[in-house]
Amino acid sequence: MAKVKKAPRPKAETPKGFRDYFGAEVTERTHMLQKIAGVYHHYGFEALESSAVETVEALGKFLPDVDRPNEGVFAWQEFDENDKGAWMALRYDLTAPLARVYAQHRNELPTPYRRFAMGPVWRNEKPGPGRFRQFYQCDADTVGTASMAADAEICAMLSDTLETVGIPRGDYLVRVNNRKVMNGVLEVMGLGDDQAARDNVLRTIDKFDKVGEAGVRELLTKGRLDASGAFIDGVGLSEDQAEPVLSFVLAKNRVLDRFASEMDTRTDTTSDDYRSMAHAWSVERGPLKSSKGTHTLASGTLLTNRTLGFLQELVGQSSQGREGVNELRELSDLLVAQGYGPDRIVIDPSVVRGLGYYTGPVYEAELTFEIFDEKGRKRQFGSVAGGGRYDDLVKRFTGQAVPATGVSIGVDRLLAALREKGRLTNTSVGPVVVTVMDRDRMADYQAMVSELRNAGIRAEVYLGNPKNFGNQLKYADKRNSPVAVIEGGDEKDRGVVQIKDLILGAQIAESATLEEWKERPSQFEVPRDQLVAKVREILEGQAD
Amino acid sequence: MAKVKKAPRPKAETPKGFRDYFGAEVTERTHMLQKIAGVYHHYGFEALESSAVETVEALGKFLPDVDRPNEGVFAWQEFDENDKGAWMALRYDLTAPLARVYAQHRNELPTPYRRFAMGPVWRNEKPGPGRFRQFYQCDADTVGTASMAADAEICAMLSDTLETVGIPRGDYLVRVNNRKVMNGVLEVMGLGDDQAARDNVLRTIDKFDKVGEAGVRELLTKGRLDASGAFIDGVGLSEDQAEPVLSFVLAKNRVLDRFASEMDTRTDTTSDDYRSMAHAWSVERGPLKSSKGTHTLASGTLLTNRTLGFLQELVGQSSQGREGVNELRELSDLLVAQGYGPDRIVIDPSVVRGLGYYTGPVYEAELTFEIFDEKGRKRQFGSVAGGGRYDDLVKRFTGQAVPATGVSIGVDRLLAALREKGRLTNTSVGPVVVTVMDRDRMADYQAMVSELRNAGIRAEVYLGNPKNFGNQLKYADKRNSPVAVIEGGDEKDRGVVQIKDLILGAQIAESATLEEWKERPSQFEVPRDQLVAKVREILEGQAD
Repeated sequence: MAKVKKAPRPKAETPKGFRDYFGAEVTERTHMLQKIAGVYHHYGFEALESSAVETVEALGKFLPDVDRPNEGVFAWQEFDENDKGAWMALRYDLTAPLARVYAQHRNELPTPYRRFAMGPVWRNEKPGPGRFRQFYQCDADTVGTASMAADAEICAMLSDTLETVGIPRGDYLVRVNNRKVMNGVLEVMGLGDDQAARDNVLRTIDKFDKVGEAGVRELLTKGRLDASGAFIDGVGLSEDQAEPVLSFVLAKNRVLDRFASEMDTRTDTTSDDYRSMAHAWSVERGPLKSSKGTHTLASGTLLTNRTLGFLQELVGQSSQGREGVNELRELSDLLVAQGYGPDRIVIDPSVVRGLGYYTGPVYEAELTFEIFDEKGRKRQFGSVAGGGRYDDLVKRFTGQAVPATGVSIGVDRLLAALREKGRLTNTSVGPVVVTVMDRDRMADYQAMVSELRNAGIRAEVYLGNPKNFGNQLKYADKRNSPVAVIEGGDEKDRGVVQIKDLILGAQIAESATLEEWKERPSQFEVPRDQLVAKVREILEGQAD
Repeated sequence: MAKVKKAPRPKAETPKGFRDYFGAEVTERTHMLQKIAGVYHHYGFEALESSAVETVEALGKFLPDVDRPNEGVFAWQEFDENDKGAWMALRYDLTAPLARVYAQHRNELPTPYRRFAMGPVWRNEKPGPGRFRQFYQCDADTVGTASMAADAEICAMLSDTLETVGIPRGDYLVRVNNRKVMNGVLEVMGLGDDQAARDNVLRTIDKFDKVGEAGVRELLTKGRLDASGAFIDGVGLSEDQAEPVLSFVLAKNRVLDRFASEMDTRTDTTSDDYRSMAHAWSVERGPLKSSKGTHTLASGTLLTNRTLGFLQELVGQSSQGREGVNELRELSDLLVAQGYGPDRIVIDPSVVRGLGYYTGPVYEAELTFEIFDEKGRKRQFGSVAGGGRYDDLVKRFTGQAVPATGVSIGVDRLLAALREKGRLTNTSVGPVVVTVMDRDRMADYQAMVSELRNAGIRAEVYLGNPKNFGNQLKYADKRNSPVAVIEGGDEKDRGVVQIKDLILGAQIAESATLEEWKERPSQFEVPRDQLVAKVREILEGQAD
């Protein structure tokens, strides 16, 4: 190491794109992860914590012969005298490590292997507002089975998880699609083997939320002018080719459209069939929006069946397309058998999921309640989790295809949603603060704190310089303390303590002198031996 | 990026020195960390999660002008066209990041700032057996107060924490020392300003556990032959200089020695003083070892007072030494006021703690029960946590000294201890497995699983290839499942299910055929609608 020269003071800063999390931010996340882990475990999934560091080779995005693999991941070379040390990197997700773990330990692990994992992942990307280079993921995957029952289970578990962490039924939907259906549609159009066209179409459909039906139609065909006036090239399909793609994406809507067009002329308006569809229609579209949540299993199932019938028409004779439709039907049947109807989990071909590696079912959990965005416009909260089936990840290591399916929850988005809904347990209440009036009697104050703690009350003694009492109150304020305890020489002599309800007295804490402060009705004098009882009484009052 | 050539299959391996944690290994640690966080929070500490990545500059071990700072930490340079990107590194502990966080956010944080943090840290060291390059730490620190009450609080909290996670009183001791006392002893010897000698002496004392009193005496003076026959140079003190150092380290023992020497000639054998010391002596040394745990506050306190008196003699007129003794006395008094006597927290000058940055009190939690080491020899389990006061870490950033004190728990050591004592809740029981006899009736099996889950029972359906029933049983075995459920066509027709107690039947699961397996008395046939009730009954029986 080079000789150390007198260095300037280091900057007290996180690296760009990283941040620290304080107090309730940490505990709220911890509690949420615990709840999620509880659901995953209940479903038979086992915890896995792989190392944060992987070989670049195992992560699979880069090659060791690239001089400095620093695009996308944080990577470095193990020191070696001949500069031949292995390249290592921080994991960028929890799926790539799972593939490595399964390949490494497959002889000891049960098959199928259900595992969950939660923890930070790192991306070496340009940081931006609200875009961090370290963030949490929370995944559950089943490796080693091609059964649709595995996908159904993950979707059901995702639904349970959302409800367990505090998103009520009706405020979310798990939408399910299947890549094979899309591929079937493209096959029918004669684009089945055209990987580039397929990727372009997928990428275009993914913009549906932003540009709507007309926009997607333009982008699939001749291109369009975007909001800024720039021209975006189209995929180059003909109008005839674009139509089935749009029909696919809008399949559920097209079913509802068909029903709408026949609604007025149908005569069976008292039949179960009519009433089911009318109900489904009203839930999705209608002025009967208030009936949302009463959406029944039967009405939803009928909509699902019609949507699948519609998809069946679209994929025609494409064997891959038919396989996709059958998989969706199987998945839907399994879910309904377990009581998960379209009020929770719905077949919806508009779900695309960006990632290239999905090979079958894809799913996405969306929160359907409305929030105001940064520009004050109402919009749905949107996606908080997604996943799907990927059958090729383990093959990289072993040469053998291992079918797998799994979901990843965006922990920070879900926390933001819970905050939005006021569903987070308030973990930010501070401790009871025992103030220090006489620094020579610290042992007395510590004894009070011990009594409070032993009674199950979160408490601490003020450990700063006790000279300025105002600072002690400011401290209690900053700590969000519910109660302060005071015992000056006078109180000591009389065998009493002062107990201050800080929630009541919060508004004056900043400016009051000790004398003013003592006069407030939010302060109580009790005998020393009633300290714990009185504090508990105040805390219980505050909790009401 | 260079053109990708057809790469050979990647190796499915963690990088050297890293490992994966499975199932109960993860959940046991999670549960322990939750319990520890509970105690820390109860004491008024707030959670902090800093980023895993820091600038090398902030970590402070290396300089950016060193070409490749890869000794001790995992570091890399941020990409920059001019090769002037910042060096970043993975944190190697939780204390250096705390100093950075406090310096960065000191205006918003309360002072004093009590915080706890838990998470992995990384060391770029040569891996060895049981020595990993990623491991967990679990820290609590108080920043911004020089009060001994802060140190006392941390020691008390450490004691509470150990009992909360399952180490009973009597099986651990928190030992407390003070660096200033050692410095005082060296000052008296005329070595007060000799930093190198001081470090050498500290390093030598730290070997006390290994080489004993005679060995330390040799190492402090002329050196010694170690077990392998190699000669280890001594520090070069004279015998006269070595004596006070040994007296310091052995202060508590010397007090007991003095008492032993006068025991036979003293006539006040019924006095409180005599009986206290006799009791303390017997606890530390004696044939009365069985009275361990009855060690009273009074007897321990007397021993503490005598030890402090002895240290007082050793440091003579050294102001730093006297300050150290006074700090120890204050700390001890505060702890006794809170009810933490020497049966839990003891003044013991033999505690050194390696790290250079400690400036006052140092403390260490030791587990005192005996285990057998890898060579079959009995030994005490040893240290599981340690810490102390460090007053200069924040100064690097701000120029202002900020007093701080804190503790770090070695999570993996503590888990090993709990495993040793059989104190871990058994989290490795697997889920109930619903087997698949007829793959077309997967929906039926999923419905069973849903019923079980809704009743609070961890359950899953077998998702592998159902053709070979033996594989399903092997799977249940590997999953450590307590119960398996079977419903073949016959059972379906008769409206019943078979429920198998796998704990009872475990010994035959490997080899039995389906027919043999059904005949065992550990298997029960019940009507389908009694599935949940019967499974619950079996699980409750197993838990007894």
